[in-house]
Amino acid sequence: MPFQPDFAFLDKASDFFHTLQDTITTGLEEVESEFAAKKSSEAAVFHQDLWDHGDSSGIITGGGGRTRVIQNGALLEKGGVNVSDVMGTFPEDFASTMPGSSPHFRASGISLVIHPFHPLVPTVHANFRFIARLRAPETGADVESMWFGGGADLTPYYLYKEDAIHFHTTFQEVCDKHRDVVDYQELKEHCDRYFYLKHRGESRGIGGIFYDYKQDMPERMLEFTRDAGSAFLNSYVPIVRRRMIEDYTAQQKEFQLWRRGRYVEFNLIYDRGTLFGLKTGGRIESILMSLPMHVMWKYDYNPDPGSPEAALLEVLKNPVDWHKA
Amino acid sequence: MPFQPDFAFLDKASDFFHTLQDTITTGLEEVESEFAAKKSSEAAVFHQDLWDHGDSSGIITGGGGRTRVIQNGALLEKGGVNVSDVMGTFPEDFASTMPGSSPHFRASGISLVIHPFHPLVPTVHANFRFIARLRAPETGADVESMWFGGGADLTPYYLYKEDAIHFHTTFQEVCDKHRDVVDYQELKEHCDRYFYLKHRGESRGIGGIFYDYKQDMPERMLEFTRDAGSAFLNSYVPIVRRRMIEDYTAQQKEFQLWRRGRYVEFNLIYDRGTLFGLKTGGRIESILMSLPMHVMWKYDYNPDPGSPEAALLEVLKNPVDWHKA
Repeated sequence: MPFQPDFAFLDKASDFFHTLQDTITTGLEEVESEFAAKKSSEAAVFHQDLWDHGDSSGIITGGGGRTRVIQNGALLEKGGVNVSDVMGTFPEDFASTMPGSSPHFRASGISLVIHPFHPLVPTVHANFRFIARLRAPETGADVESMWFGGGADLTPYYLYKEDAIHFHTTFQEVCDKHRDVVDYQELKEHCDRYFYLKHRGESRGIGGIFYDYKQDMPERMLEFTRDAGSAFLNSYVPIVRRRMIEDYTAQQKEFQLWRRGRYVEFNLIYDRGTLFGLKTGGRIESILMSLPMHVMWKYDYNPDPGSPEAALLEVLKNPVDWHKA
Repeated sequence: MPFQPDFAFLDKASDFFHTLQDTITTGLEEVESEFAAKKSSEAAVFHQDLWDHGDSSGIITGGGGRTRVIQNGALLEKGGVNVSDVMGTFPEDFASTMPGSSPHFRASGISLVIHPFHPLVPTVHANFRFIARLRAPETGADVESMWFGGGADLTPYYLYKEDAIHFHTTFQEVCDKHRDVVDYQELKEHCDRYFYLKHRGESRGIGGIFYDYKQDMPERMLEFTRDAGSAFLNSYVPIVRRRMIEDYTAQQKEFQLWRRGRYVEFNLIYDRGTLFGLKTGGRIESILMSLPMHVMWKYDYNPDPGSPEAALLEVLKNPVDWHKA
């Protein structure tokens, strides 16, 4: 008989997300502190807010979250690394869009977005989560079905081929260790499809991996999710260290502010997690921590042909197989 | 027999929108130039882009628009005053949400958003438009049904009671002249309901008027629309002149940047016109001219109790009957 996930298994997955939050915030504070020391300025640290279910919609009825946000750092202009573990009852229209039948659910995950001040350092996003349908609303209730979802994607403002290759191959290596449950090429293509601004005809960034509704072999999916989550710092921090020591121009900074507008457009118009959170009475400030601090919308801006800015746009319109590049 | 609108009537309405665009851009350039002279800096002028129907969706098959955008002015940081007059065929899901049955349509209107640099000068939005269903796709085809829509609303960053009263009473006076077709109180309440950010529990600003699907008495509705559109400069420019000569602090400027985030949230998450434009292959840069130049999202920002910033938020959570204030 195949493994049947129970509440203890969900606890184990949720514990992992919480531990990963500690690891990631510590790792990011280290590089922030290193950069601040170099600039003889003060390093920012993550500020923590604990919250519990008192949402206004009545959908979430138990559990809560641990939001950690960093702002106005020397290196990290704004970022959040949030975990939550909540229980509740799906609204009918939402329930029918997902596998299983019981309206009672438990959902837990980690979600992070980092917007560095420095325009040569890319923005990054990752999240790892599970949703389980429970046979009854109580804690410890039987698990009817569950699935994992998540991924990580990179949004550079200036394109460095070696950075794109590093980010993709880090996650490709993780996927290759778990070929029985995931296929890198599939997850990479899913990521390209998901983080796409239809109205602009552009990808949000240079992609990464994305997966959802992974119901088969939950034990193995948790192992994959652990390895993918644990690879996050290695996928990103080496890129940060390489780029943060470079000089940049005011024009590059302006280009970054302008590109951040696209990030906002994606998150507010398309991102399923953001829109679901806003509609279901989630904690707004935790959800919208994903938006950059400073953003600019300039009318009909177009980079000069042949410029590094134009080269980035070219790649955003035509996704690349970075692991083969 | 009641008046039946024909194509010549649609032309007349569209001509009015074009003339109004001239009047409004001229009026705004005057106040921009006056302010620039005072600051001994250069005045910005509206830049014009003409575009025609070549949209990617195949929905719009004829006509075009005249986009006018001003940027980086001494007073007007970013603004657009756009007109368009297009013909096409509604997609099925959209067609069924509106009065009438023919899929062929002509739509024309003026839409404007002005974001001043100065934080004591409010942001303003107005638009006036008609949509007509045509019995056949050709120019000059019979009009099956038509309706007017539009309105104007003010988004101050700092609340001056006299400004709010001035803006509302200007449009109240227009409505009162056309009591057979509109009721100010109804349009004011419609505006409060429409420009509402559910996820924030806040109005976008202090309201104004809003109307839609006005099918009865099209001749009278055009007269009302003319008077409302023609009142725009009077509703707004006196407020601009009063506030632009005041000094402001860096903190007030920061509050403005933060509040602008709400403007972006409304336009990208809720605004029907914006979302319809993005989904149907409208000219993206004309549609998104409504977004401010510089915007800030700061985590969990809350103004000090008793501050002017807190007073504004209080009013945004509890709309006021300004014409009775």
